[in-house]
Amino acid sequence: MAQEAVLFREALGEVLRAERMRRGLTLRELSGRARISLGYISEVERGQKEASSELLASLCEALEIGLGTVLRVVSDNIVAAERAHAPITLPVGANSGDVVASAA
Amino acid sequence: MAQEAVLFREALGEVLRAERMRRGLTLRELSGRARISLGYISEVERGQKEASSELLASLCEALEIGLGTVLRVVSDNIVAAERAHAPITLPVGANSGDVVASAA
Repeated sequence: MAQEAVLFREALGEVLRAERMRRGLTLRELSGRARISLGYISEVERGQKEASSELLASLCEALEIGLGTVLRVVSDNIVAAERAHAPITLPVGANSGDVVASAA
Repeated sequence: MAQEAVLFREALGEVLRAERMRRGLTLRELSGRARISLGYISEVERGQKEASSELLASLCEALEIGLGTVLRVVSDNIVAAERAHAPITLPVGANSGDVVASAA
């Protein structure tokens, strides 16, 4: 039903782009470091292309960030988006507290 | 270099399979619910095939679990694996405490 739900590749692309910006890297520089074509990285960042797991690993290595850390941010963002769209039900057994702040 | 690092699709497949088991669903039942071929789901669970974002969303819906929650478990598992393989350095600014227990 609710197909407006966040897609993984879109949430992932946002985080990868933010991390590249934070490092002050251009697409061209990251492309050179990761040995991945600039166009491909650009499409991944815009959530238009799925990144293969190998490509994702190379991007993380080039960005000097752990894959686990990237996915943690992605999951936090998606959880926040899910709560923002969710009805008033309280998720049973969910860890609260650590995501609430970013859900605003 | 360290290409023995965990690949996303492998970590994701493990979590999806564990969640299906926890629900007591067979591959066939999940396949029917998610309207995704049994063979495809099996390959995704074994980490042999990348799941597209749309397929991942359908699987999560069929498993009645949020994508954010799935990714949170995946990220925790990967962080734990990264720490297990990492040298003695302490990650700066990392959230500790919540992953340590599963790193053993």
